[in-house]
Amino acid sequence: MKLQVALDRLPWDDCFTVIESVKDSVDFIEIGTGVIKEFGVGIIKEMKQAYPEKTLVADMKICDAGKHETALALDAGADITTVMGFAPLQTIKDCIEVANQADKQIMVDLLGIRNREKIEELVESGADLLSLHIGKDEQKSGGLDAEHFRLVEGLNDVQTAVAGGINQDSLPAFLEHRPDVIIVGSAITKAKNRKEAAKTIKGMIK
Amino acid sequence: MKLQVALDRLPWDDCFTVIESVKDSVDFIEIGTGVIKEFGVGIIKEMKQAYPEKTLVADMKICDAGKHETALALDAGADITTVMGFAPLQTIKDCIEVANQADKQIMVDLLGIRNREKIEELVESGADLLSLHIGKDEQKSGGLDAEHFRLVEGLNDVQTAVAGGINQDSLPAFLEHRPDVIIVGSAITKAKNRKEAAKTIKGMIK
Repeated sequence: MKLQVALDRLPWDDCFTVIESVKDSVDFIEIGTGVIKEFGVGIIKEMKQAYPEKTLVADMKICDAGKHETALALDAGADITTVMGFAPLQTIKDCIEVANQADKQIMVDLLGIRNREKIEELVESGADLLSLHIGKDEQKSGGLDAEHFRLVEGLNDVQTAVAGGINQDSLPAFLEHRPDVIIVGSAITKAKNRKEAAKTIKGMIK
Repeated sequence: MKLQVALDRLPWDDCFTVIESVKDSVDFIEIGTGVIKEFGVGIIKEMKQAYPEKTLVADMKICDAGKHETALALDAGADITTVMGFAPLQTIKDCIEVANQADKQIMVDLLGIRNREKIEELVESGADLLSLHIGKDEQKSGGLDAEHFRLVEGLNDVQTAVAGGINQDSLPAFLEHRPDVIIVGSAITKAKNRKEAAKTIKGMIK
């Protein structure tokens, strides 16, 4: 199981300070959507140069122009780029095509998707990494639960990531479902001792 | 009826060259999603400083973190920011709240939305500017048609924008539906004579 740390709502320099503290415990570094929109893909490039051994996830949240935006992220150094599950299917297929050609990967963000048929359609279209995701704004009215995990149960050759307000207390409930990637944001980036927080969480998921 | 020119897949300098050519004919300047992700919101700031008299639309395509991303765009100088209609309803409400407080506006992008109930829900949540939008990737299999316009027919106090591969040939069919904003991208930005193309289109919509 991999630990992905999500960098969001942070100034440029802090993104690097955080990763320098937690690099021994994290596998995937995520540049969050807000950070990309604030600074552009230049921060993806600099992060990949600084930590080439880490898997770099660009949370592009692509909705349209799949080929163009995927290339934008991959050319900057991303290993994985996100597309919204509710984007037009053609957009998702285009993202997967561009990523496959570059031997990179697309993570499909399931924000707002609640029906199994849609997920099966995504998998048939080539999606092999799905992110169960309760957005920041939705977290106000409840987090991920067993119902979300049932959406992806029993799918073949599909990896899953989970994201949405995960911290040390809520983590054990997620671990029961054996996702492939655990995505943690503020429970690491806003911790008093980030290095310790990341180490503890990494220890829990091993 | 307003003419909005969409700047997408253009280098930073070209965005300004294009606007300098077409400024007499366009009302709204849109910084496209790809441009924002490539360069960050700094280009919104520079565009607003260069053309303060124009309405500046940041096509942020917000999916989550509505308050944060709306503030990011508005603080940079945007007058209107887009949110995806398929984002969680809480996200859309948050965007509208932040925009209203700043006396700015949210454009809800209806990409992928095909049911009237969803649109009525958006309007009840405070959406007052809806964008009928066939994405770049969807355009391969067909453009906007009368069925799309029926989605927004008869709604009170709601303005509509239309986007998706509109050019001089296809424009008359859109004009019949009397939208408030016509969004044109490559038919202006890739025209041999951009100034003339913008002038012709502006003349057609008046």
